[in-house]
Amino acid sequence: MNKGQVFIISGPSGSGKDTVLSQIFKKRPEIVFSISSITRPMREGETEGEKYNFISKERFEQMISQNELLEYNRYIDNYYGTPAKPVREATESGKDIIIEVDVNGAAQIRRKMPQSVSIFIMPPSFGELERRLSCRGTEPREVIEKRLRSALNEIRRAEEYDYIVVNRDVSCAADDIISVINSRRLTVENQKHIIDEVLRKC
Amino acid sequence: MNKGQVFIISGPSGSGKDTVLSQIFKKRPEIVFSISSITRPMREGETEGEKYNFISKERFEQMISQNELLEYNRYIDNYYGTPAKPVREATESGKDIIIEVDVNGAAQIRRKMPQSVSIFIMPPSFGELERRLSCRGTEPREVIEKRLRSALNEIRRAEEYDYIVVNRDVSCAADDIISVINSRRLTVENQKHIIDEVLRKC
Repeated sequence: MNKGQVFIISGPSGSGKDTVLSQIFKKRPEIVFSISSITRPMREGETEGEKYNFISKERFEQMISQNELLEYNRYIDNYYGTPAKPVREATESGKDIIIEVDVNGAAQIRRKMPQSVSIFIMPPSFGELERRLSCRGTEPREVIEKRLRSALNEIRRAEEYDYIVVNRDVSCAADDIISVINSRRLTVENQKHIIDEVLRKC
Repeated sequence: MNKGQVFIISGPSGSGKDTVLSQIFKKRPEIVFSISSITRPMREGETEGEKYNFISKERFEQMISQNELLEYNRYIDNYYGTPAKPVREATESGKDIIIEVDVNGAAQIRRKMPQSVSIFIMPPSFGELERRLSCRGTEPREVIEKRLRSALNEIRRAEEYDYIVVNRDVSCAADDIISVINSRRLTVENQKHIIDEVLRKC
């Protein structure tokens, strides 16, 4: 059996990443989603173990010291990170796993797992990015501008990724990412066993 | 506009390559098929310009001396080759092109076009390969065995390819190859312009 593969997916605020991801899991429910460990309190509408595992700061710091995280970040007073064990378990049982993470997290995972494949979701244009960030509600202009600057900083690092998928249409973007996931199963490194299998019998 | 890409597709006799290819062109008619130039006489059922351009030996040798071929081969008394011009024209107009060629031709093209992507179509097993080669009709055993040896010699070189697609089911194999073709449009090298486009406006 082939091992599963690790797909790192990033996309700035305004890229539509969350909608694209939920389309992918709808179309390909066998793909595993990596659940982040975080120390901030649960918000309304969130469920333990869905997108996040809510853990204590003490437990998180223990995970850091025991090298149990593929990547982590401290934001203001809270930790966010990707535990290594579920990722290892998924790939060893032949399942592909998606880790949703920002550009810094992606860089950390790439160093630890050079065989991982990274995909950056891009808004189709600067104008569309601005529009999507402004359309969220009645937030003050400076909040929107801060979000826009942060999105542009992420986009400047899109070149670090293996693939770039432009989200013009959610379903097409999801299909593009599924094409990448499918194609990585077909690389010669992942298919060498079939050559041996066919030749062994002759 | 992005340039189109060159996809080299090989598969031994018994891999089902021809059926897979015709499925691909049915599903994705915008992909161009590279027409080989050959010097053998036209056979019944063949049409000029469909799979082959039938040309004279003199013209073929002129193409060799003028470096107009991406690859060529001499088999018994005839030449077979891939003219470079239609491939260049397709990719420059943004179209992807498939070149169907054997392992030797693939190696020649790879040297001339290192950016090309190569895909090897495999039979699912040795038993199935044997079965497909024997089922063709009432050919003598030695003809079948010669074909089998030649198929195995091609399979031994499948590691030279970027991707290996196992043809268990024709439609799935065609979809796998289409995934590879789609995914290659999304590599960061082919998408850099979109990063610049989004950032230029800000």
